[in-house]
Formats: sequence, structure tokens, C-alpha cells
Amino acid sequence: MGVEIYIPSGSPFTIRNIPFGVISTKANPTPRCATAIGGYAIDLGVYSSKGHLNKLSFDTSITEIFNEPTLNAFAELTHSVRRDVRNTIIQDVVDSQIEEECLIPLDQVTMHLPMHIGGYSDFYCSLEHCQNCSPMAVGATIPKNWFYTPSVYNSRVSSIIPSPHPVRRPWGVYLKDGDTPTYGASQEVDYELEMGYFVSKPVKFGSELNIAEADEHIFGFVLLNDWSSRDIQVFEMKPLGPFHGKGFGTSISTWVVTMDALASSRCAPKTIQDPPPFPHLKWPTIEDGAISINLRITLARNSQSFTMGTSNLRYLYWTPFQQITHHASAMGGLNTGDLLGTGTISGDAVDDKGNKKELGCLYEATQGGTKAVTLADGSQLKYLRDEDEIILEAWCEDADGTLILGFGECRGKLLAAVTK
Amino acid sequence: MGVEIYIPSGSPFTIRNIPFGVISTKANPTPRCATAIGGYAIDLGVYSSKGHLNKLSFDTSITEIFNEPTLNAFAELTHSVRRDVRNTIIQDVVDSQIEEECLIPLDQVTMHLPMHIGGYSDFYCSLEHCQNCSPMAVGATIPKNWFYTPSVYNSRVSSIIPSPHPVRRPWGVYLKDGDTPTYGASQEVDYELEMGYFVSKPVKFGSELNIAEADEHIFGFVLLNDWSSRDIQVFEMKPLGPFHGKGFGTSISTWVVTMDALASSRCAPKTIQDPPPFPHLKWPTIEDGAISINLRITLARNSQSFTMGTSNLRYLYWTPFQQITHHASAMGGLNTGDLLGTGTISGDAVDDKGNKKELGCLYEATQGGTKAVTLADGSQLKYLRDEDEIILEAWCEDADGTLILGFGECRGKLLAAVTK
Repeated sequence: MGVEIYIPSGSPFTIRNIPFGVISTKANPTPRCATAIGGYAIDLGVYSSKGHLNKLSFDTSITEIFNEPTLNAFAELTHSVRRDVRNTIIQDVVDSQIEEECLIPLDQVTMHLPMHIGGYSDFYCSLEHCQNCSPMAVGATIPKNWFYTPSVYNSRVSSIIPSPHPVRRPWGVYLKDGDTPTYGASQEVDYELEMGYFVSKPVKFGSELNIAEADEHIFGFVLLNDWSSRDIQVFEMKPLGPFHGKGFGTSISTWVVTMDALASSRCAPKTIQDPPPFPHLKWPTIEDGAISINLRITLARNSQSFTMGTSNLRYLYWTPFQQITHHASAMGGLNTGDLLGTGTISGDAVDDKGNKKELGCLYEATQGGTKAVTLADGSQLKYLRDEDEIILEAWCEDADGTLILGFGECRGKLLAAVTK
Repeated sequence: MGVEIYIPSGSPFTIRNIPFGVISTKANPTPRCATAIGGYAIDLGVYSSKGHLNKLSFDTSITEIFNEPTLNAFAELTHSVRRDVRNTIIQDVVDSQIEEECLIPLDQVTMHLPMHIGGYSDFYCSLEHCQNCSPMAVGATIPKNWFYTPSVYNSRVSSIIPSPHPVRRPWGVYLKDGDTPTYGASQEVDYELEMGYFVSKPVKFGSELNIAEADEHIFGFVLLNDWSSRDIQVFEMKPLGPFHGKGFGTSISTWVVTMDALASSRCAPKTIQDPPPFPHLKWPTIEDGAISINLRITLARNSQSFTMGTSNLRYLYWTPFQQITHHASAMGGLNTGDLLGTGTISGDAVDDKGNKKELGCLYEATQGGTKAVTLADGSQLKYLRDEDEIILEAWCEDADGTLILGFGECRGKLLAAVTK
């Protein structure tokens, strides 16, 4: 009774992906769980109600779990059960067993936040990003703590928005002409290229996490644009860190790519850590301590597109597995659906003109807004203009360059500030 | 059919209080909403089911709202409806109309977190606290931003615990002997005397808040002990602010004292702000811009009790109304149930020996742990010892010293670190 699903070349939603997300449609505006394959969403409640998952055993109705408006109940299932569900879907796609009524063209679905997010923390763990930012933002040198624990702050859950969603230029207090505190529309709005990952198995308040089990606690990854207002941020952040400078909008891509889908992209981190990490932050086997995910930032302006930078998740000095282990180490608890941001991911490669091409934000590329960047059409920019659109993309490749999977876009347009 | 409820002298739960909380009992372990009067909790689901609130009109069943495991649905009702509910309860208590089956002795109830908390932000808004801490923690002077916006950071929702609940001394990374980064049990655990307030009416993502309407968005107040590990905090907080140093446990009292109950305690703030606040942070009428709530910290150690400090909410330089308005100003949204901490509340009064007696934490009292404090029995302390218990209390008085209401205790015991 099923249909053959055609997967166009270059589609992010390959047979090796099977990400999870939350959709609604005009015909059924109730948010519910889905996966994506080629140009289609598979409504997983409908799929499950057809009996495809009956051979697996669940404590709760899997159809009910998939009819929830978030992925939290699904992410709370054990990893082995989630893996079995994913493998069953893959096999059913391969065998053309998915009924047509499970399928909805992706251009007909509205995407929602995939999880109910109870906590959102954002790290600062790219050595290149930190080296580029420290002289301007913090002082002449990188603080000593940076090399001993993954640097992190709590960020604002209510500001997280699902791609595609506009972000409005915020008002705030900053130093005008570098000296006079003023309340006005930010003049220095920036993007930050990050990834985010959601917690599956929780860590109870009062417990900690053994790093060898860290990836059991990660449901999967999304792209994350940590929109930043540099003038507001620089003025506000002493001594408590960033708040409004990072709190007016954080865009995420909406399909969660699971740890199983990323298994074949595990690799060694780029950097050997020196000093070596404390034992509780030491990943057991170097070969799979990181994940290779290619990243790209595109600016869309005046109907033109400009690549602003490329990067790779594996460049991070402190890996996601170290980050989540550090996060749990004070025993403050992690709940299913909590979102952890990797921090801006920069690299040190240069283009054929000797310019750094792996910078994750304009603050780095323009050296704190002091030196304009020249785009391919000869125009210049320091920070974003109203109506600029930022598109983040991520994908994994086999060693021969074959696409394994993509993440779908994380897209957002900067709107003009409100007038007052 | 009702009974007369005796309210003992000195009870925090007076007829002018009628706070809201979430209880469970052995007989009915399902968390549900209640109020407290004298030595009793009133189970509000049972109370409502008796028809006491039938003369009011609700869009949803008020009995169902009170049978929820949090106060969020109740707090989402309009202020006028919540006020009518509170006034009806008061009248029914006065008229001895509350049926016996609504009443549960307070010593038979277990208290829970009163709200589902989606975001928790903590401010740093007491000038005296800031003056006492700045020389040690930040540098020689208070950062300029402090006088232009209420300083604030996002904190950790999952670490919030309802009083009474123990807190475990955390492990973390800090400088041993002031120089060598080490991973160990914190040696500098401290309390911080704060209040917290919960959001009622939300502020949607993309909207801001007019300060004249700020108190419409506040459901009510609780006590808050922002347990802090100073060695971990000082090491970690450059440049992103505190994280684990504040993330291992945050205790709150469990009865939310409403804005209506606090109405007669409105007063002018202690301090005239200089420089004057930006217009969007200027409260319209100075006379009711603050709330007078008396505060006290008690240390219980070895069966003895020591008053560690007293203070008053009105001492804050930036008032809660300015805080919540600033919080909403970047349009990142505030949801019902979000918790905002006032920051440590210190004052500048001295005792008859000339010692400051209104210091909200040991970090201030011991000048960063460098100078021991002498307790009434002659013993000394710099930071907390295992098994120390901290009790915060708050109450409002009429001008003649008559008790208006109390908040109930915010109590927590420091447990020894786990052994490794």
C-alpha cells in the first residue's frame, strides 16, 4: 500500500538522515511530530497509527507520543528504542512501505520549535573565535579559566525562534560615540554561527554525568544563529555577562539530526588540548571525540547572496561531549529538551588572498566593527543592515565528498527597529 | 457549615496575606493549589468545588485551575479576577464559611515549587551590595553600565528548589592557593539574601512593557537564597558571568505573596537615582515605586541560631518595577511563571559596635573571605560549613509595627560534597 519516495540529489533529508521535527498544516493546524525525507514530511502519528511500529515495544502509545506538540516525550525514550524507530522508518522508506496519507510536501508544512525547552545555555568554546574576540572584548589575553573548563553562560529560552522567523533590531542602552550612555536602536547587529543540541536522557538535580556516557544524553543537533547586538552587549556585560545583547532572538533550524545519523561523522577533534583537561572532562577515545559537520554562513542582501564564512563543528576546542559533562558537573540538573549552544564556531583557514575565511561572526571579521569587510560585489559592511537575511547551513559528507545528510536552513531576516 | 479558623499571633499567614502555593499530602499526593491561613492550608480545589467562587465568572473552571500542579493557570487570569478570588477567600475566612474538609494542618502538607518556571533571571541591583563586592570581584570601581540599566544575568531554572530542601556543596574548578586551577569540592560556599518574583501576565516575544503597567505583570513575591560558591564563581566568571558558582541550588520560599497583599507596603525607594533613569525606566509616582519588606538571615549551627543580617526590599537601587521593565525592553519575551531574582539586598546601617549589620552575604561580611566574622558565641566563620542551615525570613509591618503578613521560611541545609 506504500509509495516510492523520490529523494532529489542534494536534498538534506536523505535516507541516512531521518531527522525529527514538529509540523503543522493548514488542514491540521495541531503541531505534531514528523520526520523529513526528500521533499516530504512523514506525519509520524499517522505513520505509527498504521501499525508500522507495532513490532517494537513501548511503555506508552508511540502514536500518542508522536501526536504530542513537541519531541520531548519521544526524546525521553531510551536511545535503543529511538534507534529502532529510526531504523524502522528507514527500512519502510527503502521498501516503499510508507502510505501516501503519511506524506505531506515540505512546502505545505509549518515548522515549530521541536522541543519544549526548559533551559538554554550557550558556550564559548572555539579557540579561534576566542582568540579573535578577546583583544577587543575582554582584555589583552584569554582568561585563564577558558583553558580549564568550557566557558558558558545561561541564555534566554523565551527568545528562541524556529527558522524561518524574522528578528527585530533591538533597542537598548550602549555607549554612543564610545562614551555617552544612550538608549536607542542598536547600531551593531551581528550573527553568530553556532550549532545547538538538545538533551534526551535527563541528569537529575543532585547527580552528575560520566563523560563516557555523554552522548547518550544528546538527542541531536540543529543549527543556531545567536543574533548579537555588539553595542548593547559590550556595554552591559561587566560583570555578569551578556544579557540583552544576546536576548532579542536566537534562531534554530527545526529538524533535529540525531546522534545515530551523525555516527558516521564522528572524528577526532581538531585540537590537542593543552593543558590536558581534568580527568572528568577527558573523552575516553580520541578518534570519536568530535563530530565533523560542515558549516556555511550566507548573507542575502538586495537579491544577491554572499558566503560570509565556512567552518566545521569539529574545530571546537571543547567538544559537545565535554561541554555537557561540564554543564552537569555542579549537579544543577539537565532536563529533556534543554538546549545547549556550542558557541560560535570559527576556524583559521585563509582564502587565496590571505583573508581568514572561517570566521563565525562579523565582530571577528570586522575586528569589532573597526574594519569593513568587502563583499564579492565590492560593497562593504561592518554590521548588518535592516532587511539583511542570514542563512546558516550544515551538512555531513563521506570521505569521498558524498553528501550524507543536511540540516535544512536556519534562516532569519533582520527587521528595522520599532520607531519611538 | 464552615468553621472558625484561629490565627495565632505572629503567624505569617494572616488574614491580610492569603498567599498561593502548591501542596500535596499523604492522603492525596497529587500536587494542587492552596492558600495558607494561620496553621492551615486551604485546598483551593476543594474550596472551589463547594461553590464559594460561583458568583465570580471564569472562562475556564476555577476548580480545574486550582487542581493543576502549578499556579501558572491561576496566574494567567486577569489581575481583577485573581483579586476577586482572594477577596472572596478573605471574606469567607472572616465569616467562618470555610468547610473543615478544605483545611489541612500545615504540618501535614508537603510544599512544591509554586510555578512551572520557564526562565529565571537574577539581578544585581543593591548599591550597597555592589559597592561592597566591586573592589574584590570586578575591579576597583563599579562598572558604568550599573548606573544606567539594572544589571542582570540569566540563571539556571533546573537548580531552583522549594524550601525546605538541602543543598550539596558542589565540586568545581577554582584556583587553589590563589593560583593553581584545581578540580575539587568548593571551599567557599555562601548564601545570598534575595527576593524573587513571578511573572503573571506575559510579555510576548517582540513586545515590550510600559513601566506604568509593570506591577500588573508581577504575580507575587517569595524569598530566594542564591547559594553561591565564591571560589568557583570568581574563577569562571570572566567574561560570561556566573554559571556553576550560582547553579548548584537556588532555594525559594513556597508561598507566593501577591501584589494585592503587598499593596499597603508600597513606599518610595530608599535612594534617589543619580544619574536619573532613562525615561522608559522612570516609575511615574515616587511614593509607590518600591515595596517595604523586612528581611532577616539566620544561621543555624550546632543547635544555636545567629542573626547574620537584616535588610529591606526597598533598599534596592533598581526597583522590581524597573527590573522587569528593563528585562522586557529587548523584546525577548516574558512568560507566566518566569522567576526574576532581585539580587542580593544589602543596606548600610551599623550596629552599636559600628559593624555593618545589613550585609546580604558572607562575601561582603568577610570582605571576600579575607576577614572572619565573629558570631555571638565568639566563634568565627568565613564561609559556610557542612551542616550549616540558612533560614531567610521576610515580613511586612504597618507603621505602628503591627505585623501585616509574613512569607514563611526559606530554609536550606548545606550538605557535605560527594566524595570521589
